Amino acid sequence: MKRHVYLDMKTLEEAKEIFFSMFGPGKRSGAQDISTEDSLGRVTAEPIFARISAPSYHAAAMDGIVVRAENTYGTTERDPKTLRIGKDALWINTGQAIPDGFNSVIMVEKIHQLDGQRVEIRAPAYPWQHIRKVGEDIVATQLLLPQSHEIRPYDIGALISGGVFSIKVWQKPSVAIIPTGSELVHHKDLKDPTHIKKHQIIECNSLILAGLVRDCRAEPIIYDIVPDQEENIRETLIRAIDSEAHVVIINAGSSAGSKDYTADIIGEMGEVLVHGVAMMPGKPTILSNVKGKPVVGNPGYMVSAALSFEQFVRPLLYSLQGHRPPLIRSITVQPSRDIPSKLGIEEFLRVNIGRVGEKTVATPLPRAAGSITTLTRAEGILRIPALSEGVTRNEEIQAELLVDEEEIQNTVVVIGSHDITIDILADEIRSSGHKIRISSGNVGSLGGLMALRRGTCHISGSHLLDTETKEYNISYIRRYLKGIKVNVFHLVLRDQGLIVAKGNPKDIKGIHDLTRDDISFVNRQAGSGTRVLFDYRLNQLGIRPESIEGYDHEEFTHMAVAVDVLSGAADCGMGIFAAAKALDLGFIPVEREQYDLIIPSSTLDDHKIQVVLEIIRSQNFRKRVMALGGYDPSRSGQLWMEVG
Amino acid sequence: MKRHVYLDMKTLEEAKEIFFSMFGPGKRSGAQDISTEDSLGRVTAEPIFARISAPSYHAAAMDGIVVRAENTYGTTERDPKTLRIGKDALWINTGQAIPDGFNSVIMVEKIHQLDGQRVEIRAPAYPWQHIRKVGEDIVATQLLLPQSHEIRPYDIGALISGGVFSIKVWQKPSVAIIPTGSELVHHKDLKDPTHIKKHQIIECNSLILAGLVRDCRAEPIIYDIVPDQEENIRETLIRAIDSEAHVVIINAGSSAGSKDYTADIIGEMGEVLVHGVAMMPGKPTILSNVKGKPVVGNPGYMVSAALSFEQFVRPLLYSLQGHRPPLIRSITVQPSRDIPSKLGIEEFLRVNIGRVGEKTVATPLPRAAGSITTLTRAEGILRIPALSEGVTRNEEIQAELLVDEEEIQNTVVVIGSHDITIDILADEIRSSGHKIRISSGNVGSLGGLMALRRGTCHISGSHLLDTETKEYNISYIRRYLKGIKVNVFHLVLRDQGLIVAKGNPKDIKGIHDLTRDDISFVNRQAGSGTRVLFDYRLNQLGIRPESIEGYDHEEFTHMAVAVDVLSGAADCGMGIFAAAKALDLGFIPVEREQYDLIIPSSTLDDHKIQVVLEIIRSQNFRKRVMALGGYDPSRSGQLWMEVG
Repeated sequence: MKRHVYLDMKTLEEAKEIFFSMFGPGKRSGAQDISTEDSLGRVTAEPIFARISAPSYHAAAMDGIVVRAENTYGTTERDPKTLRIGKDALWINTGQAIPDGFNSVIMVEKIHQLDGQRVEIRAPAYPWQHIRKVGEDIVATQLLLPQSHEIRPYDIGALISGGVFSIKVWQKPSVAIIPTGSELVHHKDLKDPTHIKKHQIIECNSLILAGLVRDCRAEPIIYDIVPDQEENIRETLIRAIDSEAHVVIINAGSSAGSKDYTADIIGEMGEVLVHGVAMMPGKPTILSNVKGKPVVGNPGYMVSAALSFEQFVRPLLYSLQGHRPPLIRSITVQPSRDIPSKLGIEEFLRVNIGRVGEKTVATPLPRAAGSITTLTRAEGILRIPALSEGVTRNEEIQAELLVDEEEIQNTVVVIGSHDITIDILADEIRSSGHKIRISSGNVGSLGGLMALRRGTCHISGSHLLDTETKEYNISYIRRYLKGIKVNVFHLVLRDQGLIVAKGNPKDIKGIHDLTRDDISFVNRQAGSGTRVLFDYRLNQLGIRPESIEGYDHEEFTHMAVAVDVLSGAADCGMGIFAAAKALDLGFIPVEREQYDLIIPSSTLDDHKIQVVLEIIRSQNFRKRVMALGGYDPSRSGQLWMEVG
Repeated sequence: MKRHVYLDMKTLEEAKEIFFSMFGPGKRSGAQDISTEDSLGRVTAEPIFARISAPSYHAAAMDGIVVRAENTYGTTERDPKTLRIGKDALWINTGQAIPDGFNSVIMVEKIHQLDGQRVEIRAPAYPWQHIRKVGEDIVATQLLLPQSHEIRPYDIGALISGGVFSIKVWQKPSVAIIPTGSELVHHKDLKDPTHIKKHQIIECNSLILAGLVRDCRAEPIIYDIVPDQEENIRETLIRAIDSEAHVVIINAGSSAGSKDYTADIIGEMGEVLVHGVAMMPGKPTILSNVKGKPVVGNPGYMVSAALSFEQFVRPLLYSLQGHRPPLIRSITVQPSRDIPSKLGIEEFLRVNIGRVGEKTVATPLPRAAGSITTLTRAEGILRIPALSEGVTRNEEIQAELLVDEEEIQNTVVVIGSHDITIDILADEIRSSGHKIRISSGNVGSLGGLMALRRGTCHISGSHLLDTETKEYNISYIRRYLKGIKVNVFHLVLRDQGLIVAKGNPKDIKGIHDLTRDDISFVNRQAGSGTRVLFDYRLNQLGIRPESIEGYDHEEFTHMAVAVDVLSGAADCGMGIFAAAKALDLGFIPVEREQYDLIIPSSTLDDHKIQVVLEIIRSQNFRKRVMALGGYDPSRSGQLWMEVG
């Protein structure tokens, strides 16, 4: 089987230098004339000078009367003067032309109307008083806007006032986006997404890339999906390169798989400048020049495609149209845990960011390059340099912000056991008009208590059963949060049980069946409340863990367990009813357990925390939780205990 | 004559409270379904849940072979294992489905291909290794996006992956914009702007407002110009209110002039909530409610219209579509001079902002509400509260930023005498690709030296003749910049002379003619280099100032002098050739004078200053200056003297 290898891989900096020294700031997309009216957001390709003056005539700057200043000299409070309308004075409104022979405006507030024909003034007027003279704002020939200036609404006003009705701007670059892959299906060809076939992947990358292109104020042109056949890819690439597009992106085929033809095909037609960049995600990037046109091979994974775009195509699109790229806003954060990273590769790690007390904490999201939700959920990007082996928990490091800093300030960080009602809480906060966001990290109940102790979250969600006292959470809090005063609020009671395949084909009746030879189990990780509950039940029933096939197969969330059951990787697993329901699986109830929110007493006055409590006490929240099934929210928001 | 009065005027805060308590965050523009593909930048009207899982099947996460993990157990470096392709293993590429019966992927880098049929491995594989399981990224039914979320490119990827091909978003609000005024002419009705008639004003406000509306991601609908006739205005307003527009802006007629019908007409149809806001510019604002629709009467002056929009319409448009308004960025500045302000009115003062040494200095632009260029040139807005009588020179105050803070850092502040070659310098810097901007303030030569002394500019432009030594600038620098070491660089030699009407109808031959009875003069302000030169020449010629009509009539710029001549306010004035040429006026040369740039020696190493010097020494700059006429740039950039 033929395999490809990366040409010698470049560091991100090297790759940028090679690419931008060829397609750098000097290159523009070409100038075009457009109507000034339609020029918002475009960039001037040349300096723009006024064609006429504004005002173009002497105009009243106030409502009042227009007079001859000379006629008013000597007027005082004691010696007022009467002016005859139509002879000494004329009524005038703001903006009206000063009639010939007059040279001063007296504002309406300063005159006394004696009758229809006469007004009295009590002070003299000076020449050109309250008159906007020709050219007071704009003088014909003056520079209105420099080149490389981005047109704002105000500029349109200045241009039109200055008699400039069309201007020369840089063209919006157009970007040909070619999706490739025999497994891809266009979403419009799927009548119902739930009927997607095995082996089919809905083509998303071209839409993400098109969105990013639009975000750069350029125009995407999405090509039809090209199957992984060399001839098709070659033919489409030639068409794109010969088209009017300023930039071509081919996605993907830039990796080193046996069907990754892109580099070879580009090599035939032009010059591959870079193949392989020492960045993660985004390594399989191709940067090339075909007939003077930049052709970029973008990696196939969604996150890789997006991050590679950000590094190479975004700056290119901005410079082509004379824009400066927007500033990257960054913030100093501390990682919530040690983050090792591979030496020699610059890593772009998606993180959640929250402001907890005096610390701004970054919690890494999964690294999977295929997981677009790590980008949608991310609040920032930690860049770990190629020469670093990672960052440690207490290091301060800069994170690039993907949201406004204000949002970070308004984020409540909830860490611990995952529960679907936390999503409902987040949504109810939104719909009630609060600006507050919930950022949730799923590390299990014990992990949540640890996060609270380290000060990396505001709230921890926990359902840890003390098998001796039969009480939830309290003894764990006493043990792990020693010295920290916390309030424990009820969130919900919820049904835990065995998640089984739809229709329960293996006829599992309860935990005692798990020792059967024909049944494989999927477990939750140690430290999770569900694991504690499961181990407790095994102990009650006198079942040894070794007798259960799959006891060592651990997942980190209810949903992951449900997915394993759905996919047949396991016959059953322990989890909440909502997870089974979400995937239309069977469910055998085992226990109604208590899920609490643990909040340090010192933060109870925080407005954000107050809002959380207000919402979980609301009827709307309870109604929506009830509707999920498997939940009892009747005590939501009740203070259960103060500890510490 | 009938006049109107403002209903009792409201403070800005009161007006906002009244308006937004009626049309506040609770109101939305109505939801609509749109294709996910087209949803970039829109705001979700409801939470969005995944319809399918992603991946929707178990997929290879690496290129390599897919195997049964059980078959590989026990493999070591010393005891490698051979797998037969087609039986024990299959080739697989990233993204392909895992075939039934297989459960682990070994990456291509870890295998040795023995021949076409066999590969060797040297380590065992564990189950589900390098496999993306069903739902690893997205699980069907999971919350993909909360409500009130603005769609980013990544979100489009997550939505399409999750099988969500259309979503409910808030409608883009549409805004009816009605320009009124009998003096207005649409720019498209003017074949050639230079043929504009006296009494005509090119209608700009609707275009500025439309740009601002687009900037708020809403849709403007610009109505035809309505003449100032009550019946026409009433009829158009009714049409707009009954249309589908979410908001109606009528511009203007909101003031208290005799033709300002707006408030009365609105009052007939609905409720005027506010008429008159204690803000400047922007006072003549009407806020009203007609049939539940917000109708805003915007003031007529361009700057007033824009600032009134920013306070009332922008927040409304954002909240209608569920957006949060963008953060207002601000910066701490010190005014370059005392700024008095009217008690009882909140003032919005446009300022230039520059970073000079350790100070961030704000220099006020003219207050004229009709001057759109005060907005286009502004880098910030100083808000002076209603209860303040102004700010003093050394007070620290917050300014709202209209440009990026980076731009402020990259701005060279040039204060002093105005010269057109400074505009050319600015444009040449831009076209050479530098990010550096020039912000110029025209206060005359002596004013520039004062600014340099106060540390409020980087460079001062000066042409002050010492009438005793016949030398330019040096003695003034010694006198006014005592203790400050500066370098004096030549910029240009330029022709000063008498600017006269085209064709010189009064046959003025030189300064000696200014004593003629039939000639009126316009002077420059004391402290300007031109005034120094003029007074020197008068003295040489033995002419007494009192003998010149208009000697006391002072203007602050060459252009203002030229405009006075153009408009007939004076027969002649002293100024540079370029000003006469710009307005196609006559010119009688008097002197070739020296115009220098004065730069503190301590800042010579500053990159920005280096760029300025590099540009004024360039051939391009000199060529463009030559082309203006009346200039000799042959010594541009030469260091003439170090002083101090």
